Amino acid sequence: MKLNCDMGESFGPWSMGMDEEVMPWIDMANVACGFHASDPDTMAKTVRLAVQHSVTIGAHPSYDDKVGFGRRSIPHSLNQIKHLVAYQAGALDAICRQYGAQVSYIKPHGALYNDMMANKGIFEAVVGAVASLPYTNNLMMLAKSDMSEFDSISASYGVTLIKEAFADRAYTDEGSLMPRSREGAVLKDNTAIEAQVLQLAKEGTITSHSGKTLTLNVDTICVHGDNDHSVAMIEQLKKALTG
Amino acid sequence: MKLNCDMGESFGPWSMGMDEEVMPWIDMANVACGFHASDPDTMAKTVRLAVQHSVTIGAHPSYDDKVGFGRRSIPHSLNQIKHLVAYQAGALDAICRQYGAQVSYIKPHGALYNDMMANKGIFEAVVGAVASLPYTNNLMMLAKSDMSEFDSISASYGVTLIKEAFADRAYTDEGSLMPRSREGAVLKDNTAIEAQVLQLAKEGTITSHSGKTLTLNVDTICVHGDNDHSVAMIEQLKKALTG
Amino acid sequence: MKLNCDMGESFGPWSMGMDEEVMPWIDMANVACGFHASDPDTMAKTVRLAVQHSVTIGAHPSYDDKVGFGRRSIPHSLNQIKHLVAYQAGALDAICRQYGAQVSYIKPHGALYNDMMANKGIFEAVVGAVASLPYTNNLMMLAKSDMSEFDSISASYGVTLIKEAFADRAYTDEGSLMPRSREGAVLKDNTAIEAQVLQLAKEGTITSHSGKTLTLNVDTICVHGDNDHSVAMIEQLKKALTG
Amino acid sequence: MKLNCDMGESFGPWSMGMDEEVMPWIDMANVACGFHASDPDTMAKTVRLAVQHSVTIGAHPSYDDKVGFGRRSIPHSLNQIKHLVAYQAGALDAICRQYGAQVSYIKPHGALYNDMMANKGIFEAVVGAVASLPYTNNLMMLAKSDMSEFDSISASYGVTLIKEAFADRAYTDEGSLMPRSREGAVLKDNTAIEAQVLQLAKEGTITSHSGKTLTLNVDTICVHGDNDHSVAMIEQLKKALTG
Repeated sequence: MKLNCDMGESFGPWSMGMDEEVMPWIDMANVACGFHASDPDTMAKTVRLAVQHSVTIGAHPSYDDKVGFGRRSIPHSLNQIKHLVAYQAGALDAICRQYGAQVSYIKPHGALYNDMMANKGIFEAVVGAVASLPYTNNLMMLAKSDMSEFDSISASYGVTLIKEAFADRAYTDEGSLMPRSREGAVLKDNTAIEAQVLQLAKEGTITSHSGKTLTLNVDTICVHGDNDHSVAMIEQLKKALTG
Repeated sequence: MKLNCDMGESFGPWSMGMDEEVMPWIDMANVACGFHASDPDTMAKTVRLAVQHSVTIGAHPSYDDKVGFGRRSIPHSLNQIKHLVAYQAGALDAICRQYGAQVSYIKPHGALYNDMMANKGIFEAVVGAVASLPYTNNLMMLAKSDMSEFDSISASYGVTLIKEAFADRAYTDEGSLMPRSREGAVLKDNTAIEAQVLQLAKEGTITSHSGKTLTLNVDTICVHGDNDHSVAMIEQLKKALTG
Repeated sequence: MKLNCDMGESFGPWSMGMDEEVMPWIDMANVACGFHASDPDTMAKTVRLAVQHSVTIGAHPSYDDKVGFGRRSIPHSLNQIKHLVAYQAGALDAICRQYGAQVSYIKPHGALYNDMMANKGIFEAVVGAVASLPYTNNLMMLAKSDMSEFDSISASYGVTLIKEAFADRAYTDEGSLMPRSREGAVLKDNTAIEAQVLQLAKEGTITSHSGKTLTLNVDTICVHGDNDHSVAMIEQLKKALTG
Repeated sequence: MKLNCDMGESFGPWSMGMDEEVMPWIDMANVACGFHASDPDTMAKTVRLAVQHSVTIGAHPSYDDKVGFGRRSIPHSLNQIKHLVAYQAGALDAICRQYGAQVSYIKPHGALYNDMMANKGIFEAVVGAVASLPYTNNLMMLAKSDMSEFDSISASYGVTLIKEAFADRAYTDEGSLMPRSREGAVLKDNTAIEAQVLQLAKEGTITSHSGKTLTLNVDTICVHGDNDHSVAMIEQLKKALTG
């Protein structure tokens, strides 16, 4: 069970995230590509840090929206989605080559991630973009109880899905994330977070908010490293998973 | 002797250039990468057009400056130059892959091109960026009478130089372009332009503004397709070179 | 009855519209403010041209989206709408002052215009932005058969509405624009266009697509100047209205 | 003797500066206008904070360069400088009006500030921009021992100069800032900083790095609020000046 984290979300003179503290504890870095955050130099700095810690690099493309941090859905045709994803993945891969690395998977960011999960046309456009890249055919997305449609689309393009769950989010009985607006949507207790991650890793199940046990096949856990507390949580999870 | 032309310099709703009329007559398309012009969709449209006409695709990276069309020199460190060039080349290459093509060379645009020609540090940074790309090791630049320093730097990185001359520019006795500010810097007579190109192609020489014959090893001629007249000139040159 | 036209929609090196040909025939110029099009220098050039032809200047603010030309709706809070509109209007007004002019009204562009017409909260946010400006309290919007709600909101802020109709668009029996997707939505016959404009000017009515006569109080007609044909149409309308 | 500080330099999701801690202690806020930093919403937030603490608001325009934070000199014609400054000042003023405030002075940022100090043509372009604004004719700039040329240019436009010194910078015997590259260029001792500010306030002189006493007429002291230490220094200076 691997840990993945959004990284390289600084931009020009502005710093975001605790990349140096987080990188030693994660396995996969979702690296911003200059559309919701980052710039060529920040990308290079992030790639160097990932290489130094032998962390696998994924492209983290988004809608072109720095002010909104890629969190606003902006209308795109499906062809536009394909170009948008390829542009960013290719840009990051070229930066990677200067530091002996490469892009190994794609994980859309923010509104593009949500739109891809909610709209099969957009999902297929992203899958098509991934399939066209010479260096990877891996797409990271949210693990769902029923992946059959996603699996079928991605398989037809020869794309492999990397399924992620969230360490600190409560799940509904249907195996979806509880909306953030609902009480208890975000787990705050470190013991509960660690328990959820270990259960996913060892038993391939998750316990829903109401107490139901659900099967959830997950390849990686998404963590966040915004502050000292969350960095400590990442370290704790890494040690629990490998200990 | 190949013809190369800057292509894909439209941006969003704004159109520039006569790409559809020019593409049938050229051999190499220098495709803008979204920094001085273009966007992912315009890049895709340009790539499709190049593929349709079997035109070789080069990345045409620049400083990040749409308002100034990449013609203003913006201070960058050498590492920043390397990241800037790689980002744009990689982005274009990924778009190319969706249409069965790839980036085959790099030609910097505008102020970055001029800075590269004037500053060996910047030249080496660009060469380093080209060398790091997995799909090409070709860099297009201005042909000079004395290429020894450029050749030596590029050779040390394993980068091949593609040397270009301008169809419609007068040359000094030193083999440099006459500054545009001087009378006669731009050739306007079609017969004179064709003669200059054929002389370069057949004899490997150029006649300077004062009448001196200079050796100039040139791989390709840069042409411009902004209006009906210049498109007709490109067609005339292509026919003269292949006739 | 005044003619208004979107102007100053070039950007950096890219040209759009036939502003020099159109400006002599219109009364009000909706000047782009750098978000969907234009830049400070293009704004200055447009303002100078308007001043030369004694054309009233309005700010034409939009969502921040050059690639999409302001035609994509981007989620904003109501406060964000207020800041967005004020920023652009103030920027244009300051440019105007350098040429002895000022901003005399606001007309939102593209998706922001449509969102304002469809959503009373957004309409009120725009009205609030207009009300806060020291140099104008005029807002241009689409004339509707029933303006009561719009009138009531704008009156409560002391904002005056300038109501526009379109010279070349067919209207439904409810006094709305026929959707562009429907046959006959855009009038193409010059005689029909002129007749519609003169009827609006002289009788304050419009004949719907099905032949019904509807009251429509209109202060200005929106025209477009993209090509020689449309510029000639503007000249014809101006002469018909003032003849 | 007033304290001024660069404020509102966050951008979209990225935070910079300790504006809430600094605002209570300063007199004049140099507010970024969206070109080197900020966006309409950040500007509004900064304006509200200034209004709350009765701090005078100045526009802090710069070259259009967020990645470089406005610290890179980008070639502009003098007319372009005029438009650039006016655009940003007008945008900020319009935001101010929504919160009962206005722009009361202009202080260029970063490379534009340096270029204005080094190049009289650029200085005059900035002065011209300030003169054209209806709400202010005040320009903040670096105090020099010999202001005669600056005074003469600004007087011819009816523009008032607000002269600033730096609390924590050492001065040469010629009354210029010591270059940052030289040892001792930045004062680090709080007692020394306070002494320098009080001497400027009470005697209108400054003691150069070599110990010479120089006359320096100064209206305001520029302070920086990047961290807890510097915020404490601002509070100390404010108390010393008003105590």
